[in-house]
Amino acid sequence: MCDGYVQCNIVALPEAYAADFARFCALNPKPCPIIGQSNPGETNVPLLGDFDIRTDCPKYQLFVDGSPTAELQDIRDYWQEDWVFFGLGCSFSFEDALLQAGIPLRHIEQDRNVAMYNTNIACQSAGPFSGNMVVSMRPLSVAHTIRSIQICSRFPAVHGAPIHFGNPKDIGIDDINKPDYGDKVEIREGEIPVFWACGVTPQQALRAAKIPCAITHAPGHMLVTDLRNAELATL
Amino acid sequence: MCDGYVQCNIVALPEAYAADFARFCALNPKPCPIIGQSNPGETNVPLLGDFDIRTDCPKYQLFVDGSPTAELQDIRDYWQEDWVFFGLGCSFSFEDALLQAGIPLRHIEQDRNVAMYNTNIACQSAGPFSGNMVVSMRPLSVAHTIRSIQICSRFPAVHGAPIHFGNPKDIGIDDINKPDYGDKVEIREGEIPVFWACGVTPQQALRAAKIPCAITHAPGHMLVTDLRNAELATL
Repeated sequence: MCDGYVQCNIVALPEAYAADFARFCALNPKPCPIIGQSNPGETNVPLLGDFDIRTDCPKYQLFVDGSPTAELQDIRDYWQEDWVFFGLGCSFSFEDALLQAGIPLRHIEQDRNVAMYNTNIACQSAGPFSGNMVVSMRPLSVAHTIRSIQICSRFPAVHGAPIHFGNPKDIGIDDINKPDYGDKVEIREGEIPVFWACGVTPQQALRAAKIPCAITHAPGHMLVTDLRNAELATL
Repeated sequence: MCDGYVQCNIVALPEAYAADFARFCALNPKPCPIIGQSNPGETNVPLLGDFDIRTDCPKYQLFVDGSPTAELQDIRDYWQEDWVFFGLGCSFSFEDALLQAGIPLRHIEQDRNVAMYNTNIACQSAGPFSGNMVVSMRPLSVAHTIRSIQICSRFPAVHGAPIHFGNPKDIGIDDINKPDYGDKVEIREGEIPVFWACGVTPQQALRAAKIPCAITHAPGHMLVTDLRNAELATL
């Protein structure tokens, strides 16, 4: 959708929790890179584009006491005057850069979701927010792994360089063929699994925090912004 | 020697061969990055510092018909009015950057020469100059491999990012424990061999070219320049 434009992971929650959540993101910038953050009650961040956060995500996920309870088409019934929302970088932006550089991504070729895994890498905690990092995996040749590290290093706002490659057990993944989220993706002869910090991590932190009410985008239904992916490149 | 200052690999040869050698370097910039090149007969390149190329390398290697025949303390007896010399980037510069970033290098810790290997990666030929790429190997953790790719990408003038990591056989190295040049370096549990294009490559090209006379620095006796390593960083 909207090739070339930045899509954001969204987290919306009451002001009482916003400072801790912001600090959680600051302490864990690879899985939780903040691209935009609203003032309490604001339904828009002009930096990201002209939208109303209550209606302009394609779909939302409601969390109650840390559990996802419903998907919603809009969140006007839940939004309060003290709510804050965060726009967090999403892997779609760096995948765009990799594809432009001629690096094929199998899950895209095969029209699947990327494979994602819980790891044993502990995030830095902030208030009630804690948990282990979730990672996404893409199988690449060694040469493309080196190139992807170069390319993704230019995009710290969308997870940056990979955090690991090679043996999945090194980061607590017991079975690479059983992703915790998304779809299994084949790793071929001569390829290695390459792991990036993943935007599912903040959703895990919401589960751990068990706050009464929070809302995120629904999986695969991110906010499409007016920013271009190329605008996020640091170099 | 002279911490922080760029050391150059040196190749000196008659003008008749200089254009082809320059093109060989241009076509193979990772193993043969040109930092300085003289006009015929000039014994200095001011960009690199105040020196006389005939006397100011710590030691020289004489090649006759492609074979190294003698080490020399100075080359005034061989230098001709039509000779050209090239200063080529050396791994010492990126090793300095890696060490400053807290990435330990075992061959330095153990006071050995870096391990170097012939590969099956063919260089682009230019006139009489040809051959396969020579690589240097440093064992690193996965996290340090990722970091080293980032750091070395800033230094294209001194071999740039690694060209391979992992299985040595992928690039035609049959036995990692038997380097073709330098010293064997232990690879510990949890480490992988990481390979960089190496400045021994142009010496191999001199052997292949079999030109009547050429001179290089002797191994480990590079020209120390007035440039600082940090000046070579592109970013």
